Amino acid sequence: MSRPSFPVNRLKTKLAAGQPVAGSFLFTGEPALVEIMGYAGLDFVVIDTEHTPNDSLQVQHLVRAAELAGITPVVRVLANCSACILRALDVGAQALLIPQINSAAEAEAAVRAAKYGPQGERGMAGIVRAARYGFVPLGEYIQAANENTMVIVQVESMAAVHNLDAILTVDGVDAVFIGPADLSQSMGLTGQFENSEFRRTVHDVIDRAKAAGVRVGIFCAKAAEARYWREAGADMLAVGTDTMLFAAAVRDLVKDLG
Amino acid sequence: MSRPSFPVNRLKTKLAAGQPVAGSFLFTGEPALVEIMGYAGLDFVVIDTEHTPNDSLQVQHLVRAAELAGITPVVRVLANCSACILRALDVGAQALLIPQINSAAEAEAAVRAAKYGPQGERGMAGIVRAARYGFVPLGEYIQAANENTMVIVQVESMAAVHNLDAILTVDGVDAVFIGPADLSQSMGLTGQFENSEFRRTVHDVIDRAKAAGVRVGIFCAKAAEARYWREAGADMLAVGTDTMLFAAAVRDLVKDLG
Amino acid sequence: MSRPSFPVNRLKTKLAAGQPVAGSFLFTGEPALVEIMGYAGLDFVVIDTEHTPNDSLQVQHLVRAAELAGITPVVRVLANCSACILRALDVGAQALLIPQINSAAEAEAAVRAAKYGPQGERGMAGIVRAARYGFVPLGEYIQAANENTMVIVQVESMAAVHNLDAILTVDGVDAVFIGPADLSQSMGLTGQFENSEFRRTVHDVIDRAKAAGVRVGIFCAKAAEARYWREAGADMLAVGTDTMLFAAAVRDLVKDLG
Amino acid sequence: MSRPSFPVNRLKTKLAAGQPVAGSFLFTGEPALVEIMGYAGLDFVVIDTEHTPNDSLQVQHLVRAAELAGITPVVRVLANCSACILRALDVGAQALLIPQINSAAEAEAAVRAAKYGPQGERGMAGIVRAARYGFVPLGEYIQAANENTMVIVQVESMAAVHNLDAILTVDGVDAVFIGPADLSQSMGLTGQFENSEFRRTVHDVIDRAKAAGVRVGIFCAKAAEARYWREAGADMLAVGTDTMLFAAAVRDLVKDLG
Amino acid sequence: MSRPSFPVNRLKTKLAAGQPVAGSFLFTGEPALVEIMGYAGLDFVVIDTEHTPNDSLQVQHLVRAAELAGITPVVRVLANCSACILRALDVGAQALLIPQINSAAEAEAAVRAAKYGPQGERGMAGIVRAARYGFVPLGEYIQAANENTMVIVQVESMAAVHNLDAILTVDGVDAVFIGPADLSQSMGLTGQFENSEFRRTVHDVIDRAKAAGVRVGIFCAKAAEARYWREAGADMLAVGTDTMLFAAAVRDLVKDLG
Amino acid sequence: MSRPSFPVNRLKTKLAAGQPVAGSFLFTGEPALVEIMGYAGLDFVVIDTEHTPNDSLQVQHLVRAAELAGITPVVRVLANCSACILRALDVGAQALLIPQINSAAEAEAAVRAAKYGPQGERGMAGIVRAARYGFVPLGEYIQAANENTMVIVQVESMAAVHNLDAILTVDGVDAVFIGPADLSQSMGLTGQFENSEFRRTVHDVIDRAKAAGVRVGIFCAKAAEARYWREAGADMLAVGTDTMLFAAAVRDLVKDLG
Ligand SMILES: [Mg+2]
Ligand SMILES: [Mg+2]
Ligand SMILES: [Mg+2]
Ligand SMILES: [Mg+2]
Ligand SMILES: [Mg+2]
Ligand SMILES: [Mg+2]
Repeated sequence: MSRPSFPVNRLKTKLAAGQPVAGSFLFTGEPALVEIMGYAGLDFVVIDTEHTPNDSLQVQHLVRAAELAGITPVVRVLANCSACILRALDVGAQALLIPQINSAAEAEAAVRAAKYGPQGERGMAGIVRAARYGFVPLGEYIQAANENTMVIVQVESMAAVHNLDAILTVDGVDAVFIGPADLSQSMGLTGQFENSEFRRTVHDVIDRAKAAGVRVGIFCAKAAEARYWREAGADMLAVGTDTMLFAAAVRDLVKDLG
Repeated sequence: MSRPSFPVNRLKTKLAAGQPVAGSFLFTGEPALVEIMGYAGLDFVVIDTEHTPNDSLQVQHLVRAAELAGITPVVRVLANCSACILRALDVGAQALLIPQINSAAEAEAAVRAAKYGPQGERGMAGIVRAARYGFVPLGEYIQAANENTMVIVQVESMAAVHNLDAILTVDGVDAVFIGPADLSQSMGLTGQFENSEFRRTVHDVIDRAKAAGVRVGIFCAKAAEARYWREAGADMLAVGTDTMLFAAAVRDLVKDLG
Repeated sequence: MSRPSFPVNRLKTKLAAGQPVAGSFLFTGEPALVEIMGYAGLDFVVIDTEHTPNDSLQVQHLVRAAELAGITPVVRVLANCSACILRALDVGAQALLIPQINSAAEAEAAVRAAKYGPQGERGMAGIVRAARYGFVPLGEYIQAANENTMVIVQVESMAAVHNLDAILTVDGVDAVFIGPADLSQSMGLTGQFENSEFRRTVHDVIDRAKAAGVRVGIFCAKAAEARYWREAGADMLAVGTDTMLFAAAVRDLVKDLG
Repeated sequence: MSRPSFPVNRLKTKLAAGQPVAGSFLFTGEPALVEIMGYAGLDFVVIDTEHTPNDSLQVQHLVRAAELAGITPVVRVLANCSACILRALDVGAQALLIPQINSAAEAEAAVRAAKYGPQGERGMAGIVRAARYGFVPLGEYIQAANENTMVIVQVESMAAVHNLDAILTVDGVDAVFIGPADLSQSMGLTGQFENSEFRRTVHDVIDRAKAAGVRVGIFCAKAAEARYWREAGADMLAVGTDTMLFAAAVRDLVKDLG
Repeated sequence: MSRPSFPVNRLKTKLAAGQPVAGSFLFTGEPALVEIMGYAGLDFVVIDTEHTPNDSLQVQHLVRAAELAGITPVVRVLANCSACILRALDVGAQALLIPQINSAAEAEAAVRAAKYGPQGERGMAGIVRAARYGFVPLGEYIQAANENTMVIVQVESMAAVHNLDAILTVDGVDAVFIGPADLSQSMGLTGQFENSEFRRTVHDVIDRAKAAGVRVGIFCAKAAEARYWREAGADMLAVGTDTMLFAAAVRDLVKDLG
Repeated sequence: MSRPSFPVNRLKTKLAAGQPVAGSFLFTGEPALVEIMGYAGLDFVVIDTEHTPNDSLQVQHLVRAAELAGITPVVRVLANCSACILRALDVGAQALLIPQINSAAEAEAAVRAAKYGPQGERGMAGIVRAARYGFVPLGEYIQAANENTMVIVQVESMAAVHNLDAILTVDGVDAVFIGPADLSQSMGLTGQFENSEFRRTVHDVIDRAKAAGVRVGIFCAKAAEARYWREAGADMLAVGTDTMLFAAAVRDLVKDLG
């Protein structure tokens, strides 16, 4: 019997080593695009289920594609709900992106749902896909799961900014992730990503997270933006989505053809 | 580049013009039936996810079929939950039917989930399918989405009837929709749609909605029933489901064959 | 262990008893419509894969629905190809409708693909779904399969009419089935189903089949047509498709609503 | 018209007759495995949606397979949520397994969601699949549904053990079901199923349930364990999962091949 | 009733007007990418089923997406087989790309399968999706289908080049399409797209097609290549595939991020 | 960029090293069962599409699961058809099992369809999944594909036995595979696997293949049978199917429970 090993979490490993990481969001449900992201060298893919119709069986196909291509599958759950978190983890998500976290209590609930006891209360079934159907022995699996599973909470409202320091102290939160679109909406500055008040706020979140020793991620529309925020201290750069990248490529093609 | 336009909401347009609208429910997951409803001239189809197993990826296929055939896709969400509302809208639902709304507060929560700021707090991703993957510019998209997306709340319990006047004043509620089956159950008159107390209640809901200037819809088993309630003031007639229409057609066929 | 029995083929049983049978075509891929056809009392459903995109996994879902509802699942294969026939049978089709059979040799090939040895050369795997995954013992299964599986060949061209007598003598052909649309096209009378030459031809096919002691089926657009051809000797009346029945029902609804 | 009857609930019938029942969990989404469980003689299959990615459309395919093979389809919902319960029942689940029930109030909520009025408040649509698309008359359907649908609550935390007596008095709870993995986690004894304190607790739950006249089920890894707990009073033995049974079979095969 | 019209074939219209057209291949099965291609302004998308696993039900979803976005859906069938051609057309393909056509007889067979009588022998069912489920009247539908459906044959072997003049005279062949990969393989120059003998051959095919008044298409890896061949006389430029465009975009992103 | 490598073909490597290999057939479409086979230590899985409804998109999911678990994905195509072979290879099959090969000419056709030029005429698209979407450079990919892809032909009729020596000389045939069920049918000894004439024939096929230096595989119902034929010289032992293994496990469970 060829004992399967628990998959390496490239996102976690690099962040732990103090290296910035780069990835993108998946807004379609196409496993081929996940493989391509991995082969091209991205560190992680956020398989979105909040703004997309990706159901759980599709998420499982996408997680398999990510593992195959050596890219860390992060699942953005549809809400901070323990059943959603459980399902994403049981199919093999190696990190969770939790939308709309506005308080330490909400962050704690997310961690509780994501970790087995004693750290948390994740429902236990030792033979799920994440446990390689039981081929990883239970004790080893639980330890590996609790160590490797990342909880990343989205800071995307003024309430979250207000409560940021408390959120940053929550044990088990691996990173905060800035959602510019909703944050700008919450500030009454929808889509004004160049607005100085908006940018000050983003800088402030990054600075406070860094000061607290917590990793910080951000969604960026383009590579230039990602380089800017990386310079400013962000560790986890999520650049666009598969659909944005593809749309830009097709637009360029149409332009190139004259 | 052929700029896509935001799709016309035939349901909204006709109601705004004071015209009654006719549609039906989809209880299967079959896009062909949606296209047929549209080609036959119905104004809207309610893609149900409350009493059916239609998952989100299937809803997306059904919404595409509705847009193609020029029939307004209404999605009945499985519950008054903001994540469910978000997902339905992001794939392109032009109207929401929210089950079991029993108070103004519940109706307000539905509106909040359905509208972008400042009217609401719908999670924002400007490149979802509803925004034609970003081909409709953000500002234009947000304005069109907030104007065109309809929130229709189901009045289907005595609690809802009791709180109707408050529900009717909620800003952003485009219509109330009477659910006879659950309403009759709530009155202890399950399935007694000819009962006089039941009918008085339905008339009362219609009358109060009309008086408040709010559109009112109702589920009808047959065309005759729809004509009756239209006469009584209902604007939005949902007649049967795809499965009911089909079952009746096959029964008739078997009878005709002798 | 509750030994599963080989399912009863209602289509075969009734035809064997000299009774006419009634059914319809499935042009969607929706299992609910199959169940409804069965509950409403139709004898068979033709799950089409020639003019529809129904892939094999979907056919399997549809066959399960048919068995559940006690209606005989007939699969119209996409062509007279032995691999297609094998796959349809292995998932549980109880009868095959083979399009475009123009000669005795073609009919013989269909029979050969549909029957185990010594009657035919159907590829054997004794543990397919049709064999209830091996719960029906091999010997019993083979006998039941060869006895119960029906081969119905479509007569839908002048070539077929010309070669009809030879086709009718092929051992293992349970019925011939007239395809009016393609037959009319082949006669240069596309869609002229009231044309007297066309009707004479159909009568002729029915009469020759009856004389040869072979059952005869026909596709009919409406119940009246089915009654007419039943009167004329047809045994197997396939009236419309799910989509035709549904489209007519929605059109009637729109008309009824005024 | 061949009136469909409401399907027999073999799980309920045998338990009502005082007979123990045996089944297994389905952790894949494969209908063939459900049929095989039924043909092999198991009484019930728990179609899991808590620890698996099985979406609703897949659950419907699995329920059809279960009905076909005469095995009772139990659906473990993803959480004690009324919309989830409704969807599972409407596609045809004959019993619900509700995870993480820790109080009488939670058990009451589950029952309320599972039963039509006046016993509960299950949302009503008389033409769903469970009602055979309306072919079972409404009154008959409601009565049959309320009588046959089983509510089985999972006791899998110290809180639940603490509140067990109250839970056992809840009207409409057909059985309690012990979840050893989560119970052991909750006791700080994760996976120590041989621990004497753990076993005493399980015996205690069984004894108190029996004393209260409530059926009791338990998940067992192997047949020997199931025989032990049956001896101890458990009525409903769920032995392993499809994936566990299959993994053991393949491991044995590899060993046998040397 | 809002009579649906037969969809406009933008590819055909522009070619008929003497304008070059631009498109791309779809190698995934993702409808979102098809919509994006359309919104970005491409004229056609080749939904591939030869080198991809796209099954028929998926093709139907993709065709709907193409119609929605106003881009012409071309289906590359898996082989020159009449049943494959029929299925692609019946779900709504507006053009066929037929691989590996090496002789006039093969091209004639493709045309025969693609056109209704008297031009061809396409199997007729007047209520398929292509006919808008019967909402387009039969006579009108047949005429529109025969006029609008394009047959494009792939010239991708030395045999085809040898027989090109005969192929070009086949009535009903709308365009020849050069497949550089297979053509280079056939010449023993696999992948040597800059080889002078290879390029001479491509020029020769283009020149002969133009001389014969037949449109000519070609697969190009990049926009520059497309501009080159357009200059050389090619009318129909298919640039890359969704996966190639996406892979290039992700590679660029990774490079841009440094 | 992390250059993906062409996956290792464990089946080929072990056979090349003179080691026997063990595997099983997949008759369901469930990726979890494929992963389990791999984790348990089997060398290969035959993903069947001849006797199962597995469509191409499902095959692709199954191939990904196999690669993930380090087990060689063999695809049994539905027939010896070049388009079927192409599709299976392009999604990533590492070996083909071709049913019903009865002559050297048929075996040659299979090889031709499976290999790129100059060895064969496999249709070329250098950016399919097998080529890691173009991340493996074309030249390297073609060489690796031609070297690693195995062609295994089924010997399962008296005609094949008769023509065996010629089949064994066909360049590019990596192994012959004995199909006992069809072979016994062809001999008029359906299912009589203990019959001495049948066994002599199997021994003869093995002996002649070994003498010709060609590997030989066989389907075995149980491990004991596999050990027997391995002893007799067979190299590639395919023991049962997922459904057979599972059915046996459930039957044993039911028996064990008493
Ligand atoms: Mg957000
Ligand atoms: Mg309701
Ligand atoms: Mg025909
Ligand atoms: Mg649990
Ligand atoms: Mg080619
Ligand atoms: Mg065979």
